[in-house]
Amino acid sequence: MFDNLSAFRILILAIVCLPFMCGASRAEDGYDLWLRYPAMERGEARQYKAAAKRIVVPAAQSETLELAVRELERGLAGMLDAAPSVASDAKRGGNLWLVSGDAALPQGAGIDMAALGPEGYAIRSVDGGTVIAANSDIGVLYGAFHFLRLMQTRENVTGLDITEIPSVDVRIINHWDNLDRTVERGYSGASIWDWHKLPDYLDPRYEDYARALASIGINGVSLTNVNADAMALTPAYLEKAAALAGVFRPYGVKIYQTARFSAPMEIGGLDTADPLDPEVRAWWKAKADEIYELIPDFGGFLVKANSEGQPGPQDYGRNHADGANMLADALAPHGGIVMWRAFVYSEHNPEDRAKQAYAQFVPLDGKFRDNVLVQVKNGPIDFQPREPFHPMFGAMPKTPLMMEFQITKEYLGFATHLVYLGAYYEEVLSADTYAQGEGSTVAKIVDGSLQDIELTGVAGVGNAGSDRNWSGSHFDQANWYAFGRLAWDLDADSKDIAEDWARMTFANDDAFVRPVVAMMMESREAVVDYMTPLGLTHLMATGHHYGPGPWVCDLARPEWNPCYYHKADEEGIGFDRTASGSNAVAQYEAPLAEIYGDVETTPENLLLWFHHLPWDYEMKSGRTLWDELVMRYTEGVAEVHEMRETWEGLEGYIDQERYDQIVAFLKIQEKEAQWWRDASIAYFQSVSGRPLPDGVAPPPHDLDYYKAISHPYAPGH
Amino acid sequence: MFDNLSAFRILILAIVCLPFMCGASRAEDGYDLWLRYPAMERGEARQYKAAAKRIVVPAAQSETLELAVRELERGLAGMLDAAPSVASDAKRGGNLWLVSGDAALPQGAGIDMAALGPEGYAIRSVDGGTVIAANSDIGVLYGAFHFLRLMQTRENVTGLDITEIPSVDVRIINHWDNLDRTVERGYSGASIWDWHKLPDYLDPRYEDYARALASIGINGVSLTNVNADAMALTPAYLEKAAALAGVFRPYGVKIYQTARFSAPMEIGGLDTADPLDPEVRAWWKAKADEIYELIPDFGGFLVKANSEGQPGPQDYGRNHADGANMLADALAPHGGIVMWRAFVYSEHNPEDRAKQAYAQFVPLDGKFRDNVLVQVKNGPIDFQPREPFHPMFGAMPKTPLMMEFQITKEYLGFATHLVYLGAYYEEVLSADTYAQGEGSTVAKIVDGSLQDIELTGVAGVGNAGSDRNWSGSHFDQANWYAFGRLAWDLDADSKDIAEDWARMTFANDDAFVRPVVAMMMESREAVVDYMTPLGLTHLMATGHHYGPGPWVCDLARPEWNPCYYHKADEEGIGFDRTASGSNAVAQYEAPLAEIYGDVETTPENLLLWFHHLPWDYEMKSGRTLWDELVMRYTEGVAEVHEMRETWEGLEGYIDQERYDQIVAFLKIQEKEAQWWRDASIAYFQSVSGRPLPDGVAPPPHDLDYYKAISHPYAPGH
Repeated sequence: MFDNLSAFRILILAIVCLPFMCGASRAEDGYDLWLRYPAMERGEARQYKAAAKRIVVPAAQSETLELAVRELERGLAGMLDAAPSVASDAKRGGNLWLVSGDAALPQGAGIDMAALGPEGYAIRSVDGGTVIAANSDIGVLYGAFHFLRLMQTRENVTGLDITEIPSVDVRIINHWDNLDRTVERGYSGASIWDWHKLPDYLDPRYEDYARALASIGINGVSLTNVNADAMALTPAYLEKAAALAGVFRPYGVKIYQTARFSAPMEIGGLDTADPLDPEVRAWWKAKADEIYELIPDFGGFLVKANSEGQPGPQDYGRNHADGANMLADALAPHGGIVMWRAFVYSEHNPEDRAKQAYAQFVPLDGKFRDNVLVQVKNGPIDFQPREPFHPMFGAMPKTPLMMEFQITKEYLGFATHLVYLGAYYEEVLSADTYAQGEGSTVAKIVDGSLQDIELTGVAGVGNAGSDRNWSGSHFDQANWYAFGRLAWDLDADSKDIAEDWARMTFANDDAFVRPVVAMMMESREAVVDYMTPLGLTHLMATGHHYGPGPWVCDLARPEWNPCYYHKADEEGIGFDRTASGSNAVAQYEAPLAEIYGDVETTPENLLLWFHHLPWDYEMKSGRTLWDELVMRYTEGVAEVHEMRETWEGLEGYIDQERYDQIVAFLKIQEKEAQWWRDASIAYFQSVSGRPLPDGVAPPPHDLDYYKAISHPYAPGH
Repeated sequence: MFDNLSAFRILILAIVCLPFMCGASRAEDGYDLWLRYPAMERGEARQYKAAAKRIVVPAAQSETLELAVRELERGLAGMLDAAPSVASDAKRGGNLWLVSGDAALPQGAGIDMAALGPEGYAIRSVDGGTVIAANSDIGVLYGAFHFLRLMQTRENVTGLDITEIPSVDVRIINHWDNLDRTVERGYSGASIWDWHKLPDYLDPRYEDYARALASIGINGVSLTNVNADAMALTPAYLEKAAALAGVFRPYGVKIYQTARFSAPMEIGGLDTADPLDPEVRAWWKAKADEIYELIPDFGGFLVKANSEGQPGPQDYGRNHADGANMLADALAPHGGIVMWRAFVYSEHNPEDRAKQAYAQFVPLDGKFRDNVLVQVKNGPIDFQPREPFHPMFGAMPKTPLMMEFQITKEYLGFATHLVYLGAYYEEVLSADTYAQGEGSTVAKIVDGSLQDIELTGVAGVGNAGSDRNWSGSHFDQANWYAFGRLAWDLDADSKDIAEDWARMTFANDDAFVRPVVAMMMESREAVVDYMTPLGLTHLMATGHHYGPGPWVCDLARPEWNPCYYHKADEEGIGFDRTASGSNAVAQYEAPLAEIYGDVETTPENLLLWFHHLPWDYEMKSGRTLWDELVMRYTEGVAEVHEMRETWEGLEGYIDQERYDQIVAFLKIQEKEAQWWRDASIAYFQSVSGRPLPDGVAPPPHDLDYYKAISHPYAPGH
């Protein structure tokens, strides 16, 4: 029928190339995230085909093991154009054994299963193929994703000797989703949870989400906003949560919920929520019992209390441990945990906001139940482009502290700005707290190893919503991905992660990957430069946090004012956190307290976080502080421009649809970086009274123009 | 290479059947709407292949003509597995000529081009193929979609002699989208318009939307909520609208905007919005000029004024014509129109709500400018499951009246209830107003033919949002589709439309289509039965309108109370609109006034709309009114149960994903129909004091249970 190969190929293309798939690459909208499995070139495929002809797995499989098989089938069929067979016996060569629990390992595997723990896995090349082994089915699923990643990124699949054990127990996405489907600080459409149609209708998207989470080792999701709604704990909503739990369970993802501290009053009809009140305690116990009837593996509660207007134990003269422990006691019989947020600061407390959480929590060290984690943001203010690590890390050696990162880009440009947060997370995790001398990294605190903590975790305020591309933009998927990879391995290299992600999500061409990864790694510093350089912080517009507002100085709460942070006047700028100021530096261990306390040794990228300095202060570059500030702002914009040029030079490597969206978003980012730069310089110049350095373009408009800019409908608020 | 056909087919399948496409049919999520073009069986394809081998079109094509070519390529390649060629000359056989404007028709075409008007088209079989001809490129695009529809529904494409001229000029979707991306009465996710990223980023979804609109002849979209926000008319938002207009323009879709009547004050800084004030008039004139600078083919304004708290001319002692004409004068130099809504009623007016719009507008007949249409809802209350046609139709012979239908199912079960509205629209359009004797259908009023009206239109409050399936559910797509088909041809048969839609959207198997169409045609009556039978109306819960609330009698506005409408007491039920009551019947022409005024001649499906009757009133069935009411409620639920059984018997005809969603939604619908039925019977029984007919199941709970049901987060509100 086909005399020559090209006629055949044309026919294949004519059939395969359905109109919506035509073009250099099939149209992609980002829905498939990093789990795309596009067909490899024939040459590349050869070694992988040889390695994975057959999946060897017992005939009777749990749902989770079946998912592992299906994922491998999907990935192998997609990438190799040849679906593997599935059998309970190995044949000669190309076997991919999936070994779970105490099933027999193939000969020569020699894996120390005990060391893998409940979720870890090993991938080992043996005679005749590869073993993926774990003590649990979910471990095998994780291993299957890892194996596929090797293929997706064109790594070798021979000579493998991989052992992966997660750094922490709880690797969780926090949704800030409201019950009305709006998402606080969400830039990806509506909430992913369609409450109105739950529990009767399970949108396939839920399972796709669970699969994406499992692919990066996330094992928990808390469903609703930490500015909690007690309705979330009513029977109707618990049934909806139970339906979701059913979808997530086979993927190893537990459901958690936010617990509104005043729920006993709001939905329980009690007249108090005092954690020491027996009726209140009984109410929570009954509520926990009710939840576990519906969701036997419910993870536990996430709580924001006595923060930004949320109710809490302090309303009754109790402390955070009292509140957390009450909930912990209710959950303990069921194996649940409490994640109690340390994001606290009060407008009635004149103390430096950066000091308040430490002051409230450190005295409570060791007073929390075993099943409580205190959840601490990466820095002591609030997810700013750069903050020093939170001084609580290392300061509570008897208390499980979990990290809270932000994945959604509330202060980092929303969905449109390309900012790779893996670099930021890594900076935080690798910071040395000196809690027990040098090498006491934040990672070692969080993974419990430094201070012998049993219960460990990492949370990320997620960015997945109803948008087709999940995260609001294609590059924002990388932040979700990187969060998962780092939560699994706190010591992972964020650049390697970026490369994995770029290869899996876009393409394996080195000519593409190299500049893209470089762009990603530079992007975090770019946003620091055009928003809050040199350790400045919290200079955004009020409410929605969209665009600059460094002039704002009149809000009800003083520590919501940008001016509170920059304290700029005609003499200088910056927040004195040394002994001559708020002395926040003293909350850090030696030698950090000294390093931060001394303007000579403070890293310049945190200079104005810790010091108030005159505009003429001489920077390492030889420039004055004023000139340096202006240069940083200006360079930030130039960096974005470079990113645009880099990306625009990469047309043709990937599908047009995603390429075009990224082009458009980089244009928006450049415009907005320019806006940040211009408005900030206009304002700070009005305060400093200094001229701009030679050759630097002035803002095109006057300060009043920037002050008048208003965006009442910016998303997420 | 391929010795036998089956090995070849297996290989094709292996390649084509990418894992996410495997299964009986490729997974479908509804995104492709009715424009799916799945490959036909080879036997079926033969006649179509012969008919359309080559698209014959001039080499130089406008963007719109190119879209027509591309759509045909897409459809033909998809359905026939063989892309047509495109040439400027015909060859022997299988030619599909696209003839626009005064381009030459092929021999023997004999088409009266003048009669087609600006948007009409002809499709005629000639020697050597088929001609699609129109005076404009958009007409050709419409014709191309029609031709493809013939194929999609397996009609003959030989011996064609089709002439299609739209019934009305303005065929428009009204979005009730807010600038914060919430959608009033929207059940399909967030607003489709991502304002934050406009104008720089044009989501491909906008073009997909324009294409869907063009496929059913919709030629206008008004972007934002009639509860208008003046910000929509500010430069930033006009630029965003202009960007959208650019996407829509080649598809023949004009952009319109809502005009907040107080905009001159809110964004213009004036201290009045009096339509007779020269400054106000000048402001609107300048605003119009500004708009047309950005959008040269801007359609015009849609206005809700002096209704439900919206500002308007009556705030200044002026009337609707004063207000509409001011805007009309501002737009007239640019060719724009005003669509002024007649949805008015005041809580300070004790008159029957159903009479108020007529009372305000009919005296203004002939007083509106030529470029104003008065936009009238289908009935005199508000989009209820059944209403008599609005008495304004036929009562304003000197004024363009356009129809306003609701596509989104605000009072009809939101996204989950299967209710085919084509049947409802047809009932309204075919209603005889007797304005000029028998045969004076609503359709003839709306298309201008009865009363010689130049400017005509139909509006639909749309249901397209950010949901993947656009409309919130698969069957809700049918309502959007039917609206478009009926807007194009007011006399079309809604059952034929349902069949077209089912074939295009799902499958052509008669064994599937027949029961599905029957189910669709019965669905409207089912919802009337389980919500508001026998002419009852407006009995829904407060605010969100989700679920029943017939007991509600305490709202601030009397005519928002369900009790206002049913007036049930221990004696009887219903609203007396005859001469002994509000005499709303007198707003209808003879003989309707008499027909509705006499309980003997009133159709039973409008009985309680026009009459207050004793519970013992004997219905045509022989049952008492009370018994009949209970039976209707009960039968409504049974009808939904039947729909479920019908659908559940059709597994395998279509893809599993859409099949499953519809199964789940029908389950929800049956639960909610039961809820409506039970709550309504519980309430009306508490009022009537009558026993239930024999054998009828009582509500499982008492009235207080139903009254206590609360859904604060029901969508759309």
